[in-house]
Amino acid sequence: MSENLVRFGILGCANIARKVSRAIRLSRNATLWAIGSRSIDKAARFAAENGFPASAKVYGSYEAVLDDADVDAVYVPLPTSLHVRWAVAAAERRKHLLLEKPVALNAAELDTILAACEANGVQYMDATMWMHHPRTARMRQFLDDPRRFGPLKSVHSIFCYNPGPEFHNNDIRVTPDLDALGALGDTGWYCIRAILWANDYQLPEKVTALREVKYNEAGVILSCAASLSWADGKISTFYCSFLTNLTMDITCAGTDGNLRLHDFVIPFQENLAHFYTTSESRFAELSLGVVPLPSEHAVTTELPQEALMVSEFARLAADIERNGAKPEKKWPTISRKTQLVVDAVRASIERGFEPVEVGN
Amino acid sequence: MSENLVRFGILGCANIARKVSRAIRLSRNATLWAIGSRSIDKAARFAAENGFPASAKVYGSYEAVLDDADVDAVYVPLPTSLHVRWAVAAAERRKHLLLEKPVALNAAELDTILAACEANGVQYMDATMWMHHPRTARMRQFLDDPRRFGPLKSVHSIFCYNPGPEFHNNDIRVTPDLDALGALGDTGWYCIRAILWANDYQLPEKVTALREVKYNEAGVILSCAASLSWADGKISTFYCSFLTNLTMDITCAGTDGNLRLHDFVIPFQENLAHFYTTSESRFAELSLGVVPLPSEHAVTTELPQEALMVSEFARLAADIERNGAKPEKKWPTISRKTQLVVDAVRASIERGFEPVEVGN
Repeated sequence: MSENLVRFGILGCANIARKVSRAIRLSRNATLWAIGSRSIDKAARFAAENGFPASAKVYGSYEAVLDDADVDAVYVPLPTSLHVRWAVAAAERRKHLLLEKPVALNAAELDTILAACEANGVQYMDATMWMHHPRTARMRQFLDDPRRFGPLKSVHSIFCYNPGPEFHNNDIRVTPDLDALGALGDTGWYCIRAILWANDYQLPEKVTALREVKYNEAGVILSCAASLSWADGKISTFYCSFLTNLTMDITCAGTDGNLRLHDFVIPFQENLAHFYTTSESRFAELSLGVVPLPSEHAVTTELPQEALMVSEFARLAADIERNGAKPEKKWPTISRKTQLVVDAVRASIERGFEPVEVGN
Repeated sequence: MSENLVRFGILGCANIARKVSRAIRLSRNATLWAIGSRSIDKAARFAAENGFPASAKVYGSYEAVLDDADVDAVYVPLPTSLHVRWAVAAAERRKHLLLEKPVALNAAELDTILAACEANGVQYMDATMWMHHPRTARMRQFLDDPRRFGPLKSVHSIFCYNPGPEFHNNDIRVTPDLDALGALGDTGWYCIRAILWANDYQLPEKVTALREVKYNEAGVILSCAASLSWADGKISTFYCSFLTNLTMDITCAGTDGNLRLHDFVIPFQENLAHFYTTSESRFAELSLGVVPLPSEHAVTTELPQEALMVSEFARLAADIERNGAKPEKKWPTISRKTQLVVDAVRASIERGFEPVEVGN
């Protein structure tokens, strides 16, 4: 630990690492310490273009970042199929692990990663940024309010974008040996997390993929949907796609209220986010309208959600390093639950849209 | 035809008939002519309380309304299980037929009604009011715009309300021998219509009900959901319930845009309705936000949607009576398609959530 700042090493120069580098710079308890790429030139260019301090280490391999004893924590935005190898290697060298999603190809791989983190006493967190926006906590208060929302009955979530032909020809997210989960891993991950979040992380009993799934020629999922059901009758659905205009919706319906937002993954604006609620909605006399009208809630944040994520991760890492605290189990727990549902959706697709019991 | 006004008779004093009576009063080409109830006192009270003119006929039976040769058209808000009997009787006496939804218990019943209307040359229309709001036509323009919306990929629709214990104990909508379709017929009807509307009334290939369905003790559906799929990979889902706070959403996602509204069944306000669109949405540089922001569209209407419905129905009826026009086939056609999907959802539920091919 240097000057109370958690020193980050980054494995690889993925596009998303530019955003997270900025988030590390913005965080008051973290610093950009090292970047490693298979090409040292690429690493140097990345460091120069992304505001790394002059003192930052530039390495020509991922290994070298892990070998740097001054690196406290690593951010791993590598293709999913490389996660298990590099995440385990990082944990074994006692680096705290901020892991990009989808975190693994399946829960067995993730369990290998989590076991390595646990054995080495390092913090694990997946890089699901919206969990850290203050809006998320505000919405949680609403969902927990028995008067304004009541018991949850249903959630629908959508995360789609339409990245165009260049992406479909070249991006790792549609390449089977790099990101075999395709849209399910890249965007469905967020929808599943949203549904679990709204359900207080209670796993569904059954998951059923919906007809029809779209694949590319290499067999990677470009679009899919699923329904999740709980024994008490709650039902949730999601739709994720690489073929559809950018949409990022959560709609939660409770007995006495509902909650909506349209930019849950990345807020439309960096420092100001909205959500919309109604409570005890009813038709007006003669059903000539509805009362009350929906309410708009605005939540401001000085730091963007990704910087808040880095700050929280660095806080936990520092607490372990400085105070001998135990790693916070919440983050691996919800990451694993998300992965279990991803696995169940995939299994349901493979079994011809049969309902699948969610593992544990 | 009296003074160019289409003379309406109403069968029964259902609560919704109060709203439609007002709509008939507001329409410039229709007039309240007769009301019939099994109780003549109830009919008289209904007429007095709902602005019927002093000259209006008050009858102690439905039959008497149909026997009144001056009645041009009837509005039938009776319980669904009575529709086939009274709708056919009305058509056979050459009354144009405005039929409350759900229009029938199944497509076979509806076909009996439609055959009677066709044989007698009368106009059929179901009372799905939102079809007639000018907002619906404005949204259609958006969906049809290849630049702003592009090919449709997915629709999600929700219509729920939570009417409370009194409803659950007594209402005809949860009584199996009156409205056996429960929430599927009452609120699912609108969701299915919304999905068909967004899909240009192209029937889905398959319908699969989603786990789990909630029933009351009498076996009536209180809550259900389903997915609809098309051969080209389009997918839509809906959720309908009597157990969930009032929610009336349509979310349409196309390749290049999306459309949202939150009051599709009954606008929050009578003369002003909104919808929301985005087109060519993309993440801003570094994914630090989204451009462009969603657009809000406001649509004003002098007459409420139910009066526009009555006006359009009366215009068609008058055109038949005065000009020998043929009945407009659009309305029975889309009503029947809606019923076919209702039937498929019910069949899928009965077959343990198996996919069901939609009839024709």
